[in-house]
Amino acid sequence: MTGVRAVALGGGHGLAASLRALRKVTDDLTAIVTVADDGGSSGRLRRDYGVLPPGDLRMALAALCRDDEWGITWSKVVQHRFGGDRELAGHAVGNLLIVALWDLLGDTVAGLDWVGRLLGTGGRVLPMAAVPLDIVAEVVGADPARPDEVTTVRGQAECATTPGQVRSITLLPSDPPAVPEAVRAVLNADWVVFGPGSWFTSVLPHLLVPELAAALHLTTARRLVVLNLAPQPGETDGFSPHKHLEVLAGHAPALTVDVVLADTKAAGTGDLADLEKATATLGGRLVMADVAAADGTPRHDPGLLSGMYARIFHGGQGDPGAKVLPRDRGIPGGRRPGNAGPQGTTQLGSDAEWR
Amino acid sequence: MTGVRAVALGGGHGLAASLRALRKVTDDLTAIVTVADDGGSSGRLRRDYGVLPPGDLRMALAALCRDDEWGITWSKVVQHRFGGDRELAGHAVGNLLIVALWDLLGDTVAGLDWVGRLLGTGGRVLPMAAVPLDIVAEVVGADPARPDEVTTVRGQAECATTPGQVRSITLLPSDPPAVPEAVRAVLNADWVVFGPGSWFTSVLPHLLVPELAAALHLTTARRLVVLNLAPQPGETDGFSPHKHLEVLAGHAPALTVDVVLADTKAAGTGDLADLEKATATLGGRLVMADVAAADGTPRHDPGLLSGMYARIFHGGQGDPGAKVLPRDRGIPGGRRPGNAGPQGTTQLGSDAEWR
Repeated sequence: MTGVRAVALGGGHGLAASLRALRKVTDDLTAIVTVADDGGSSGRLRRDYGVLPPGDLRMALAALCRDDEWGITWSKVVQHRFGGDRELAGHAVGNLLIVALWDLLGDTVAGLDWVGRLLGTGGRVLPMAAVPLDIVAEVVGADPARPDEVTTVRGQAECATTPGQVRSITLLPSDPPAVPEAVRAVLNADWVVFGPGSWFTSVLPHLLVPELAAALHLTTARRLVVLNLAPQPGETDGFSPHKHLEVLAGHAPALTVDVVLADTKAAGTGDLADLEKATATLGGRLVMADVAAADGTPRHDPGLLSGMYARIFHGGQGDPGAKVLPRDRGIPGGRRPGNAGPQGTTQLGSDAEWR
Repeated sequence: MTGVRAVALGGGHGLAASLRALRKVTDDLTAIVTVADDGGSSGRLRRDYGVLPPGDLRMALAALCRDDEWGITWSKVVQHRFGGDRELAGHAVGNLLIVALWDLLGDTVAGLDWVGRLLGTGGRVLPMAAVPLDIVAEVVGADPARPDEVTTVRGQAECATTPGQVRSITLLPSDPPAVPEAVRAVLNADWVVFGPGSWFTSVLPHLLVPELAAALHLTTARRLVVLNLAPQPGETDGFSPHKHLEVLAGHAPALTVDVVLADTKAAGTGDLADLEKATATLGGRLVMADVAAADGTPRHDPGLLSGMYARIFHGGQGDPGAKVLPRDRGIPGGRRPGNAGPQGTTQLGSDAEWR
């Protein structure tokens, strides 16, 4: 366990996997979570009570639970969904608990902190914005009969399941207030981790919340992008690994990145030269390693991912005292000019290499 | 704080008041709670999921919370009810949490123990039966047009609000299985406390669960009855204090009692000689003290009630080492013959007297 101050950005299962790995590496961990969900239990609570959709926040909290009896039990409880077909059916217990605490305390961050105390989580979970958001996606071919037509799709649930290909997203409202504690966590971090997760609906939205985006550009923290293991049907269908990076750059043209972590096998599904080039364009180094679950499902293995986080945070030295990766940092808030080639290659052992 | 093993029987606000007082006197405290509620949030959960109605269990758990920030916050959370008029409206958060734990763990007692651990309660909360119950009341004059007609009313909510006068109750099913942990707690107790609370729907039902009733008769524990401060409209409308004791005897003819605690002012609303006689018929001593809240509402003052529990448990000596009250104990399981007069009078100080 190190004192690295890590901030993880995302939502859903991708962020949960990242948090499960990160909490083994550091005990100074903050998750900043999307609040644009409009489906399921979260969507019902959002509509009925005008609150932030709690589902992604709940999943992040559950992922931060310890592996002891207390943590395992309460993480199961908050993740538990009511069955049947009556009024409670489908609601996750943790969603109800979070909304109750918000109602009782009248304070979003205090409510989440109290659920964190119940769960005994080491880290902190914060929303990326202080108000519920809608994601609006520009989609090509949403109507299969007109495959070239560009239309807009509104709502996270719709975006995640559109038969078309998402090109870009915007938020509604377009300038939501950030949560001050989240902005401070980014500014004070040593490392900020983007992804893995639903690229358009969980990873990119943070870059569209003005104050949070400014902090993500201005922070002295190193930035790590963790690529997904597979394209996501309906959201990034047919996306190569480097396409994910291009889309990231498209939504935050001035953002530089220090490291891009790709699974060896997943990276091999695209053109490796393109991936290296896209990484270099962002100002970063590419690290490839086996981080996928052994069962072949597109999930990160918490142990492997955790090992890679430790190595990346310590510059590949495996030395907890070592500082972060050396890098040629761009102008704050701007991409380093002429930064079009790979930043170097470091061998990290049999299962990982720096490119 | 003493090592007195206390068991409190009841439900609702009466039991909660008793528990708030008892937890200041002992840290070995078990609440055994009615599970016959069929109204409100509990009724909906009972109908939708076939579970025990959790509401009275939740109230007892909340009453056992400590007075620190943790206890105060979580007791407020579990007691909190969702507002609005949609699917969650009216549900108490703690009810949902209890039902989720039951579903997840498949074990009633383990689920309640886990909620107790969350809340940091000192004592334990157990249901009086392992299955949901219905209370069936024999009521006189339920139809105001026929004031002498005796009818039956089914369901706790109905019984508590009938315009008639309840005469007696039975349970459906009539021989529900008790919860073994509750039976053991009664058998191992030093003191068993009946009431205060809704007499027919919260205090008497325990005496109709066969295994629990047997334990209540056979235990070597002393038995304390705490009388209500006022008749309850719809359930004990017009009942004098001694009438409460007669009804108790009517439902458990073989039960002996060691102490009856009555509020001085409330006892004065009936014939004091009748109350002394009814107490003596049960084999007990009457203790009168000011235990009502100062604001005139029919609620027990937790501090005053707590002080009286301490004195009664220590035989009026105020000495934590002193054993319980001297008494002339009847044949186990049977009322002592000829026990028709007062058992003696002990002065307990300016605010209480033994009769």
